[in-house]
Formats: sequence, C-alpha cells, structure tokens
Amino acid sequence: MVASRHSEPLCIGIDGGGSKCRASVVDSDNRVLGTGVAGPANPLHGYAQTIDSIVRSASLALADAGLSPDLLGELVAGVGLAGVNMPSLYNKMASWSHPFRKMYLTTDQHSACLGAHRGGEGAVIIAGTGSCGYAWVGGRAEVLGGHGFPHGDKGSGAWMGMEAVKYLFLALDGLAEESRLKGELLRALGSRDANDVFEKIGGKSSSHYARLAVQVVECAEAGDPVASAIMRDGAGYISDLADKLLEFNAPRLSIIGGLAPRLQPWLAPHVVARLADPLDPPEIGCVHFAQQSMAADISAGEPIAESEGKALFG
Amino acid sequence: MVASRHSEPLCIGIDGGGSKCRASVVDSDNRVLGTGVAGPANPLHGYAQTIDSIVRSASLALADAGLSPDLLGELVAGVGLAGVNMPSLYNKMASWSHPFRKMYLTTDQHSACLGAHRGGEGAVIIAGTGSCGYAWVGGRAEVLGGHGFPHGDKGSGAWMGMEAVKYLFLALDGLAEESRLKGELLRALGSRDANDVFEKIGGKSSSHYARLAVQVVECAEAGDPVASAIMRDGAGYISDLADKLLEFNAPRLSIIGGLAPRLQPWLAPHVVARLADPLDPPEIGCVHFAQQSMAADISAGEPIAESEGKALFG
Repeated sequence: MVASRHSEPLCIGIDGGGSKCRASVVDSDNRVLGTGVAGPANPLHGYAQTIDSIVRSASLALADAGLSPDLLGELVAGVGLAGVNMPSLYNKMASWSHPFRKMYLTTDQHSACLGAHRGGEGAVIIAGTGSCGYAWVGGRAEVLGGHGFPHGDKGSGAWMGMEAVKYLFLALDGLAEESRLKGELLRALGSRDANDVFEKIGGKSSSHYARLAVQVVECAEAGDPVASAIMRDGAGYISDLADKLLEFNAPRLSIIGGLAPRLQPWLAPHVVARLADPLDPPEIGCVHFAQQSMAADISAGEPIAESEGKALFG
Repeated sequence: MVASRHSEPLCIGIDGGGSKCRASVVDSDNRVLGTGVAGPANPLHGYAQTIDSIVRSASLALADAGLSPDLLGELVAGVGLAGVNMPSLYNKMASWSHPFRKMYLTTDQHSACLGAHRGGEGAVIIAGTGSCGYAWVGGRAEVLGGHGFPHGDKGSGAWMGMEAVKYLFLALDGLAEESRLKGELLRALGSRDANDVFEKIGGKSSSHYARLAVQVVECAEAGDPVASAIMRDGAGYISDLADKLLEFNAPRLSIIGGLAPRLQPWLAPHVVARLADPLDPPEIGCVHFAQQSMAADISAGEPIAESEGKALFG
C-alpha cells in the first residue's frame, strides 16, 4: 500500500558531515523517491555552509524525485549532523528558521545507528575519516571514542594517515626501517624529501591525512610489515571499542564508514563473528528518527506544525 | 685586554623562537653587558611581531647595559630565528630594513649549536616544546627531525603532551589502564570528563600540549608505568637521533632545551656518556655567528656597513 502524499506528510532524511550532506526523500513505505548530495554540513566548521548544504541537498532530492520544489515546506525532515553533540551547536541548529514543515535534529551517530538497525536498538562503529562507537539501547545513547583529530579517533583514516606520515619522517631521516609504504607515500604525495612532505601535509586537516589511509591499507594487504603494524594497532583499538559497545547489551553491532570493509579482516575474530550488516544508510536512519519523533509527538498530542499540521494529518 | 667600544663594533646576539626573543649585548671578549627579553619571534607565525620582538629585545639589552638607545644603529647583530630554514622566510627577514649597523641571520638551530660549542663544530639535540637534531661539521649543516607538531618532533614536550592526551581519552572511555598519570592530567586540566578535556585541549597549539609534559615527566619519575612508557618511547627516539648525529663526526654533542635535564636519565647509557655540557646559551651562539660572519666578510674585503664600516674598523 502506497499512501497518498496528502494523507501522510512526506519524509526526508538528511545526513550531514564534514565532507558532504546527503538527503533522501521517501514515500510512506520508506522507499526512496529521490536523493540529493550537497557540500559539507558540520556546524562546527560553519553554520552558513551547513544550512546551505541541508537546503540544497533537500531541493536536489525533490528534483531527483520529480517533485515540485514548493514541497520543501511540506516535508518532515530528519536531520543527523556531525557536531551537534555539543549543546551550543545543537541549540544553534535547532533554532534555525528552517524551510521544512518540521525538523527533527539529532547527531549523525544516532542517525547512523538507527539506519544500520532499521530504526531498532543496536550499536555501530563508524570508521571513515574519523572513528567512534555508538550504542542506542533502552532509549539511552552511549558514545565511545570520536574525540577528534589528531588526539583521538584511533583506527580512523586520518589516524592511519598521521601514523603513516610520522613513520615517513622517521624513515626519511634514516631513523626507521625502509618499507614499501615509504615509497607509496612519497608517490602519493608527489614528494622526494622531508621538506616537500611537510609542505604537502604539515598542519593540514584530518581529511588530507585520511587520503593517505589508502596507501596504508593497500601496503598492509600486500604484506608490508610497517603498514601491517599500523593496521593491527588501529584495528586492535576498533576491536576494543566493539567489546565495550557489546557490554551495553546492544542486540546488533555493525561497522560502517569508508574504512569498514578494509578494517574488518584485521579485527579480532570474536568481534567479526558478532558483526551484522547495516540495513539502511545513515540518511534513512534520519528518516527513522523523524518517524519515531513524529509518532512520539502525536501520542503526546503535539501537532506536527502549529499552523496546518492537523489538517495535513487528517 | 678589553677593546674600546670605538675600535671594534659592539656585537649583539638575538635568539628568537615561538615563545620569546632574547638578546645579549657583549663586549669584545664576549662578556655580557646587558640582556633583554621580548615576545615571540618566529616569522612563520607573524612578521610584524617578529621584527617588533627583535628590536624590543635589543633595545632592552642596551638599556640593561646602561648604554644609549642611539647605539642600536652601531650594533652588529647576530640573529638566530626559528622558521628561517624555509627559504621564503629567510629572504623576507634578510630583506628587512633593520635598524642595526649590520645583521647576520641564521637558523635558531645553527646559533644554538654554535652556542653549545662556543663557536666550534659539534651537534645539538634541542628538546623543548619541539625536538630536533642539528650538526655543524666542516662548514656543513645536517638537520634531523624537527618536522613539527603533531606529525614530528617526537620526544618533545608537545609530543609528550599529545601522547598523554591520547592516553587520557582512552582511559576515560575505559579502554586503557588506570594510572596516576590519568589523575594528574585531569587535575592539571581542571577537567572531570572527556568533553571538558576536549574543550580545554582539543585542537590547541603545540605549546598547550607541551604544558602537560610536566605531568608525564613527574609521573614517570614517580614510577607510573603509563608515563614511563611514554618517556621511554620519546627518549628512545632522542637516543636514535644522537646516534645519527654522532655519525657525522661531530666532536661534541650537547642536549639543550627545557626538557634536556629531565630526558637525560631516560637516554641510552652510551649516549649519556657522549654528552657534553653546553658552553654558551643560544643568544651567545648568535654572537659567535655574527663574529664568524664578520671575519669572513673582512677577509673577503667586504665592508661591514657600506657607509661607515671601514672608518669604524680602522
């Protein structure tokens, strides 16, 4: 049964992070009608850019679905954002005069977890540019790791890149063993000496370092001992994170993010045995969040939008 | 024999780094007549601040010596600066319309090395907020390490602080052993949880991290295993650096900088056996550099200052 668009509000899930913002508009059976991708949406790195990316990705999703841009004001939006675990940023985003009929805001960790477990309880490890662990059990969130670059986020792409660059400087000074990794890193950076490596990467952002994770992963997979040691160290931490998350009695555990498939072979076997495939992507997790929040509002007798919510639900 | 101030030019040594600039004006026997200290002087972090700190420290040194501020224009200045190992910054500083009679510019590593060995050949390891190795042998400089924060400068104060903060986040997540270091770090930061630690230190500069080296050193000296492991790792690198520097046949090796005395007990015994006490501080190394450069200019027939150099030397 496909509900008519006029009997139930149209939902959109919007997942925003440091590199891009992805929106999917769905029908009442959560089938994706259209998707849009825009630029970064992390309010810690810029409020104007964040709201621009949210509106742009939503508009592109409507266009992709063949729907009128005027429908923006009728959408119930679930928005999962990086950075809003900080109360000041949550409040700033929540008080935005957004163009949607209703906006439900949560952290990108929460929406990723709801996505992985199709709205149900569970835990996720997110391993991409950064890393963190998150469990959602009994209506309670537990967050582990994710303390940021360069002091936290062990096992992430940025951490791998940083470890690789540290090794590279040692090797260029003749203070660490030669390796395939050294050559691959110099090739990737287009560098021949330490000064040039410094110019290319010194003081750069986490995403610059994360690009070098490719060389670490590939060299480790090819048996290079230096790269393998970095992978083992990072994966050891991710396995510890998994053990700790399972202590919260999460019924399911998934590992998501760009590094997930490459990390998996390096994780502890008992952790691998507990991993479950993620069921929906993070932006559909945002849809689940919006639907759950909306249902809670309705059962609390709260209208979805003050002016016309009831009429639209009628 | 004390030469009259009118027969030989008065020399001043000025050593500038990321936190302060120190100047000493000396007589012809290199006896310090007066010293002045001003703010940071690293052109990488600000050209205007750098030239202001140089002039201010020099003026304060003249005042401390009871000399007229008008003598600034008669001083031959040896200036050792952080950052000028980068050619662009060297050229910018060298083309400064400085107020001295003559300015000889070099890196702070070179002047520190000349200071430690009273103008002679040798090698130094500098261990403070950052770390690096430098050898000056046969008119040739060899630089090792010092690649910067957070990817290089192993064994430095900033590196120790970063390792300590990484450990602290793991410990706060229950993913690392408890230790005395954990409590001391939280006390030093005035923090109780990971969010507050992040607010206090996350993304801060190397000097912020370096402040936490005190806790690492003190806990290690008190036998704490976590802090001891950090010290051993850092000191192992410094020992490797020493071995590499000795390969350049440096006749003397000194370790200088704020961390030097605390690192020494953790270095390899064969390295400790080779360490020689530094003979002069870095700003006197700047004086040696100015005197050596001036002597080279004179033997090359070059006047010290185009207008009146010869008259003053006559």
